[in-house]
Amino acid sequence: MGGGFGGLYAARKLGGAPADVTLVDRRNFHVFQPLLYQVATGGLSPGDISAALRWIVRRQRNTTVWLDDAVGLDAARRALALADGCELEYDTLIVATGVTHHYFGHDEWERDAPGLKTLEDATEIRSRVLRAFEAAEREPETALEEGWLTFVIVGAGPTGVELAGAIAELARDTMRRDFRAIDPSTARVILIEGADRVLPHYPASLSERARRSLERLGVTVRTGAMVTDLDERHVVVGTGEDAIDLATRTVLWAAGVGASPFAAALAEATGAERDRAGRLVVEPDLTIAGHPEIFVIGDLALFTHQTGKPLPGVAPVAIQQGRYAAHAIRRRLSGKDVEAFHYFNKGELATIGRAAAVANFGRLRFSGYPAWLLWLFVHLMYLVGFENRLLVFVQWAWSYVTRHRGTRLIAHGWRGEDG
Amino acid sequence: MGGGFGGLYAARKLGGAPADVTLVDRRNFHVFQPLLYQVATGGLSPGDISAALRWIVRRQRNTTVWLDDAVGLDAARRALALADGCELEYDTLIVATGVTHHYFGHDEWERDAPGLKTLEDATEIRSRVLRAFEAAEREPETALEEGWLTFVIVGAGPTGVELAGAIAELARDTMRRDFRAIDPSTARVILIEGADRVLPHYPASLSERARRSLERLGVTVRTGAMVTDLDERHVVVGTGEDAIDLATRTVLWAAGVGASPFAAALAEATGAERDRAGRLVVEPDLTIAGHPEIFVIGDLALFTHQTGKPLPGVAPVAIQQGRYAAHAIRRRLSGKDVEAFHYFNKGELATIGRAAAVANFGRLRFSGYPAWLLWLFVHLMYLVGFENRLLVFVQWAWSYVTRHRGTRLIAHGWRGEDG
Repeated sequence: MGGGFGGLYAARKLGGAPADVTLVDRRNFHVFQPLLYQVATGGLSPGDISAALRWIVRRQRNTTVWLDDAVGLDAARRALALADGCELEYDTLIVATGVTHHYFGHDEWERDAPGLKTLEDATEIRSRVLRAFEAAEREPETALEEGWLTFVIVGAGPTGVELAGAIAELARDTMRRDFRAIDPSTARVILIEGADRVLPHYPASLSERARRSLERLGVTVRTGAMVTDLDERHVVVGTGEDAIDLATRTVLWAAGVGASPFAAALAEATGAERDRAGRLVVEPDLTIAGHPEIFVIGDLALFTHQTGKPLPGVAPVAIQQGRYAAHAIRRRLSGKDVEAFHYFNKGELATIGRAAAVANFGRLRFSGYPAWLLWLFVHLMYLVGFENRLLVFVQWAWSYVTRHRGTRLIAHGWRGEDG
Repeated sequence: MGGGFGGLYAARKLGGAPADVTLVDRRNFHVFQPLLYQVATGGLSPGDISAALRWIVRRQRNTTVWLDDAVGLDAARRALALADGCELEYDTLIVATGVTHHYFGHDEWERDAPGLKTLEDATEIRSRVLRAFEAAEREPETALEEGWLTFVIVGAGPTGVELAGAIAELARDTMRRDFRAIDPSTARVILIEGADRVLPHYPASLSERARRSLERLGVTVRTGAMVTDLDERHVVVGTGEDAIDLATRTVLWAAGVGASPFAAALAEATGAERDRAGRLVVEPDLTIAGHPEIFVIGDLALFTHQTGKPLPGVAPVAIQQGRYAAHAIRRRLSGKDVEAFHYFNKGELATIGRAAAVANFGRLRFSGYPAWLLWLFVHLMYLVGFENRLLVFVQWAWSYVTRHRGTRLIAHGWRGEDG
């Protein structure tokens, strides 16, 4: 299972079904991933975008939550092996374990260029960004050449764009008055994208508007650029004579995803096909070929039956697939047929800092303030838990008025250079 | 320095003084310690009770914040040695480094019985408490005898009383519907105190009321009881034939405090006297004898000139001492004399769960709902940052109505038994 969007919406839709449901997750909470970047940049607290899984399904008497990690599968015996040594037998299995970062064969980059998938990632990134400013304040003369005030974001999908915009605002607005030896607005925020434009999956006109919004915030956008090497003090962009060596202490990874470790065990046990990123090819009904009792949903599923291209790894896809899997199981329990999964694209939204965003609803494309208001509304509505909605709303309203970000905490505080 | 109550109020009062002020702290944020126990029990997020130090002093152009750790002192040269190898020269030094846990010579207990002094402590305790319920859900038959559902709090000062009350409420109210295999309200919460009553520093009548409130919440109170041994599965209370062996996986330490590591270096460099807990004896003006340029304030200072007894280690003392030290420095800068420090006791408050508290204002002593309302009001008013006040208020109001606690996050998620 998994307590992300896919697993959670499947479990909720199975509440009250004539079946025992067990939701297995390594964490005891669900995280609203689209707002992770706000935790990473000090705008929200981890608690604001999370809700305890037990609390979410507390009224579903047929639903049990297990804090555990799936490590293996015996498909013949229909038994899931868990990290604590227990086994969980199932009639139907829904796999929604999601994806992790992917460094294109350079796993050694992970240490110096963390990605943003979990709450721990978010607080780690928050600490790195804030600590870089602290280090610059202590060595103001050499801060720029030492790379303390240079922030490189690799990948200009929605996460990369949102991170770059938020860090630029943090430096220019939020912390404007906070330092004595440095001027934080001299910080350089560089967004690197391999494709020829930002938000490459969006229409070109919106990419152009997003780029202009980013540049207005002071972000340097480099498209058609590939990172070829990086370590804790440098990023190298391009190859040969054109290669550029950027001195930086803070590299954030928002490019490329790879499948969760459990996906390999699952593929081996079921003979499922995987793509280069490790995602599992699924049938039109989201099951694995030859295993109608195993559904794969969310980012981990490679579903190409609708458009010929894989569906994107975004929350609405995972939510609809989770609901579909639950619906399919309920139909089967009452002996009925199930139609194929069909993704209804409600549109895409990405935000670029304060009062700027782009929206793509097929023919209807817009940007700027209206798109930003819509972004606010949609994200508040999908947040789990009324209390979370209220808390996030209060903090957004407050930071809109004051440009303040309330949760600028560095985990573990002071550290040596190698800490 | 130090960014707790003492250091922070001193730094704020020195804003605009004809002096350069440097605030040194290991953390980049101030923590409102009186509400730490609410973070430890899932009621509030770390961000709600913290504020970035830089943000607090952002308008004081004479004040610099350094993220660093004081490790040594050369009193003759007036130079502070910092953890990153730098030195900080001073004319006047205010030491407000506070205290840490003290295990009465059993430092090996710290691993199995964490104390509550920092935000990291609070999230660690939160994880341990929640993980114990998760483990019980997985082994329901043996949960009680294995100690998963037994929570022992050592020390019934305000922190111990507040923790015990909050854990009892968490089990009985908040998580009532969350589990399938266990009934969380069967959890045992045991509060152990060496003195003959809870809140031993309060008047006896309030101790009695606090005890009754705790017992109404289901807390077992054992006074006149000493912990003589503990490990990860047991706590032994008492000695010889009367010794009781409690099976428990969760022991929280709220007894005894010891001075911060820097205090030893300070005592050696200045020849200052220390008490058994490591606190430094100060003169009537809060300076170290023979070193009028070094103030010691807050929990670390042993000030006995007013009542013959040391002042308690509570926030109001630290705040008043911080303001006094700043005031004394300003007077000296303008060539004026300084009167001795005098603590004005505004009263004491401790809360015991939902809608119950005790208040002691000298002759005026009361408890129950009015004391609880007063407690809410005072704590909201002293929180730094208007946004924090609003967020905490919203969450308190929400949890009062729904008994919900929004931030029940287990850090690092699933762990093996030895994790």
